[in-house]
Amino acid sequence: MRAQINMVHTLQLLIMMFFSLARNSAFALWPIPPHITAGTTPLKLSPDFSITTTIVSPPHDLVSAIQDTQSRLKTDKFQRLVIGRGASDSNAVRFAPQLDKLELVFAPHAPPVRSIAAEATAPLKARSEWYKLSVPSGGSPAAQLVANSTLGLFRGLTTFSQLWYAYGTDKYILEAPVEMEDRPAFPYRGFSLDTSRNFYPMSDILRTIEAMSWVKLSILYWHVSDSQSFPLQVERFPELAQKGAYSENEIYTTDDVKQIISYANSRGVDIVVELDSPGHTTGIAFGYPDHVACANKMPWSMYASEPPAGQLRIANESTIAFSKELFDSVASMFTGPMMSSGGDEVNLPCWEEDADFVRDSIVANTTIPEALDRFVQEIQGIIKKRKKMPLIKSDMILTHNVTVTDDTVAVVWQSSADAVSMADRGHTFIYQPSNYFYLDCGAGDWLGDDVPGVSWCDPFKTWQKAYSFDPYANLTASQYHLVLGGQMPLWSEQSSPENLDSIVWPRLASAAEVFWTGAALPDGTSRLGKNATNGTSALARLHELRYRLVDRGIKAIALQPHWCALRPGACDLDA
Amino acid sequence: MRAQINMVHTLQLLIMMFFSLARNSAFALWPIPPHITAGTTPLKLSPDFSITTTIVSPPHDLVSAIQDTQSRLKTDKFQRLVIGRGASDSNAVRFAPQLDKLELVFAPHAPPVRSIAAEATAPLKARSEWYKLSVPSGGSPAAQLVANSTLGLFRGLTTFSQLWYAYGTDKYILEAPVEMEDRPAFPYRGFSLDTSRNFYPMSDILRTIEAMSWVKLSILYWHVSDSQSFPLQVERFPELAQKGAYSENEIYTTDDVKQIISYANSRGVDIVVELDSPGHTTGIAFGYPDHVACANKMPWSMYASEPPAGQLRIANESTIAFSKELFDSVASMFTGPMMSSGGDEVNLPCWEEDADFVRDSIVANTTIPEALDRFVQEIQGIIKKRKKMPLIKSDMILTHNVTVTDDTVAVVWQSSADAVSMADRGHTFIYQPSNYFYLDCGAGDWLGDDVPGVSWCDPFKTWQKAYSFDPYANLTASQYHLVLGGQMPLWSEQSSPENLDSIVWPRLASAAEVFWTGAALPDGTSRLGKNATNGTSALARLHELRYRLVDRGIKAIALQPHWCALRPGACDLDA
Repeated sequence: MRAQINMVHTLQLLIMMFFSLARNSAFALWPIPPHITAGTTPLKLSPDFSITTTIVSPPHDLVSAIQDTQSRLKTDKFQRLVIGRGASDSNAVRFAPQLDKLELVFAPHAPPVRSIAAEATAPLKARSEWYKLSVPSGGSPAAQLVANSTLGLFRGLTTFSQLWYAYGTDKYILEAPVEMEDRPAFPYRGFSLDTSRNFYPMSDILRTIEAMSWVKLSILYWHVSDSQSFPLQVERFPELAQKGAYSENEIYTTDDVKQIISYANSRGVDIVVELDSPGHTTGIAFGYPDHVACANKMPWSMYASEPPAGQLRIANESTIAFSKELFDSVASMFTGPMMSSGGDEVNLPCWEEDADFVRDSIVANTTIPEALDRFVQEIQGIIKKRKKMPLIKSDMILTHNVTVTDDTVAVVWQSSADAVSMADRGHTFIYQPSNYFYLDCGAGDWLGDDVPGVSWCDPFKTWQKAYSFDPYANLTASQYHLVLGGQMPLWSEQSSPENLDSIVWPRLASAAEVFWTGAALPDGTSRLGKNATNGTSALARLHELRYRLVDRGIKAIALQPHWCALRPGACDLDA
Repeated sequence: MRAQINMVHTLQLLIMMFFSLARNSAFALWPIPPHITAGTTPLKLSPDFSITTTIVSPPHDLVSAIQDTQSRLKTDKFQRLVIGRGASDSNAVRFAPQLDKLELVFAPHAPPVRSIAAEATAPLKARSEWYKLSVPSGGSPAAQLVANSTLGLFRGLTTFSQLWYAYGTDKYILEAPVEMEDRPAFPYRGFSLDTSRNFYPMSDILRTIEAMSWVKLSILYWHVSDSQSFPLQVERFPELAQKGAYSENEIYTTDDVKQIISYANSRGVDIVVELDSPGHTTGIAFGYPDHVACANKMPWSMYASEPPAGQLRIANESTIAFSKELFDSVASMFTGPMMSSGGDEVNLPCWEEDADFVRDSIVANTTIPEALDRFVQEIQGIIKKRKKMPLIKSDMILTHNVTVTDDTVAVVWQSSADAVSMADRGHTFIYQPSNYFYLDCGAGDWLGDDVPGVSWCDPFKTWQKAYSFDPYANLTASQYHLVLGGQMPLWSEQSSPENLDSIVWPRLASAAEVFWTGAALPDGTSRLGKNATNGTSALARLHELRYRLVDRGIKAIALQPHWCALRPGACDLDA
């Protein structure tokens, strides 16, 4: 019986793929669902279009998502990216049948209904983002969205809202009926934001989270503190933000954090907070100077990778106790199942030349490697005690060989090549490789008096470079399960609210599709280049996403002249 | 008598330079006036502070500039960039004497009073931007601004409004008395904006012009049309914009142009419109296809430097007549004494393989070089007939050897090295070198399907790179007079309203100071690095400018972490 079901399922898939290969769909969804079929009939939303659900007493955040989607479907003004925009479709639209209703259905035998927020903060591998969406050709029956979770329904609503083009007051598609089945290739699909080098007000963070949800990202990795400032209000250590924030107006209060978490979780985004340590911690010295070695010591380049120098005194019992309590206090603020202790770029001379550190290490009869190993284990212990999976930067493992347990997730950042070493050690990991994903690279050195001014991670990472990333490159099939996903980071040395949208969007969407759709499309064609599944190059879809983002208030940069955006392929290198 | 005056003047200069060298002024003016002295007394603006002028019946735009300055002095909230911002100054400010008045004085023996707009559109070398500003230490007598022109008064008002820091409701300086004498090293200080690849609405253009005036730029070089679109409404050829603009909402109407000119001229900014020709003209083909050879021909890379291909049929009499009338019509729309016919990147196969062009050249018994030479001369004749100085791209002269008269100004763009060739031919020129000044470089190739994706003019031009430019490099002293100034261009393949501010600011300020202040400061120290004249590095001043721009609503990017901006020098490479 089970084999028979599987065979039916396989046949269905083959039929779907046949249709996928056989026709050119103009759907500009991003990320592209792996399975999609479409017809040739125009369809528009009825003026009375509504979204309903069969769920009795739907969770509050699902109700909000339904309302938001209905509202978006009215306010979106994005017109199809063709010459004349929607004008050539106007006749077809005028006489198109009208869709009255989208019905959200909880799949039979699905687990009990929980809120989107609960689903979005479940353990990473326990999240169900699968959904199935059917849009009829004739306006009836109702369109149907099926999922096993409210999170899956949320993902489906996101897709549904991106199907439609605006023309006048109409919202339409040209290719009903539509059937799609969608699920992510990887559960961890993130964006990492550094709020220490420069501060971002709440409005920027909330707007970014909402845009993240539109491309189905699942994680905001919040690099909240660093050596330049400490903007996070921590209840047990109030002086951290009081003295370490850039100003009293540049603090994320505990209420702010609650709002961010609630806003994100209800949109399918989990927050992973990173307290980078034991390096990148001079921000702690504003409030608690005793715990920081070599704070602001010059020349900074001897003691840190960027100014100002400063690292936690990891051989000092008082500092260890402080750090544990700090991590515990911060861990208690966040709802998600993960937390990061960072760990990148520790500097040995900072400790070696610090008199207090030397004294501490003699007292404790310990070496730097031993102290580092113990520090990491203590911190990871605290994170685990709070029932969170610890994340750690890859150089702690690959360079400093600290002990980490199997349930730790490494953040591979220095180079994509490090993934092989990490996999060979059997660690699960996420990708954040500087050579593919760093959004800040390519703007030249930001240090003063550096006229040649190249940045260490030049050149600029184009959307195409990020999009070309293959999460399974150089890994053996038996290592694939170690890859949880990846994220693109924005380091804020040269970024601030002024350029947040334009440096992030639409490039962040590249990683969103890499980790949602996977290395290749189900028909085996590469996501890059023209492919059969959707009939256009990724660029054509990304243009649509970019214009949609702009329409929704995100200042995403133009990827090409508008002339090119209207003419898919005309501005290709080999056109 | 004359020698005596000169000696007195030289002595004054020496005394000024002595003071300049002797003390560290914290003034963060940008561009930095070549001559400035300051004291050590705090001074604040009286609540009744007003700006008056001795000019009887001052021109309307000067009255507006005075009102704008008074308004800015109230609304500016920029606080001094030090730890704690203005807090450490608060005591000094509380008890500081109050300045009641700034008096604008027209220098005796100055030419008759004209409007700022008239002064800003006088022939380039006839403009007088000189001014002298004195701010007393004790609140009286009134501060005095002296100039020989309303344009000079405008430049002085700009400086005056940037002297003051905000703290609470106070506006103060710490270093009264202040004396400065200021004039630009070069008259042509520009920004070139491409409104064809992507369109910028009026609000973006006006905002940019206002910000340009804050750094004393004198020229908006408007690359209004190109192959992708033709957004300019031209009365005699209405179909150019009707068919060639991206949409009916993306047209600069004749009224828009009038508004731009008026807004710019009254702020000391002259408009140089560029109708790029005979290449980069496919935008004309939407409305007038008969005049364009190889329009949209593929593969585009055979026929143009970027898609779409297309060039004017320069051997066709009808096209020449059309072009002349087009230039005449556009020239008539603009008030300034300059206009550019562009001329970059013509492609020979486009003409060689165009059947109409071949037929035309047989009929006219002409070759491509001959036709090009005639075309350029015809167009330049039209520009001159409209009493404008023609500008032309350097490759027309250096690569194609077209005939240009001595009153033509070359735009040296391919490389700064071309300046020597241009000077050796005795041509006056302005600098727009891609290797120093291109604001759009470094974002990777924008062509589709180009994964490695480097841009032809990589890397990103940092503010430091642009700022390091020496307008006299490799020239002999006898050639210096050929340099009229320079400009930084924004080509809009990957830019649009979404990133306009962040890609332009504050980098554009680099060129503003290069061409205002000159290669070096009057004391001989380099503008780069720490110098005696203002006691800080250029970076410290540029930070202040950037924060001031943000305060005034320009989304200028952060150059460094805020931590660094508060601590001049702490984030230098060698700190």
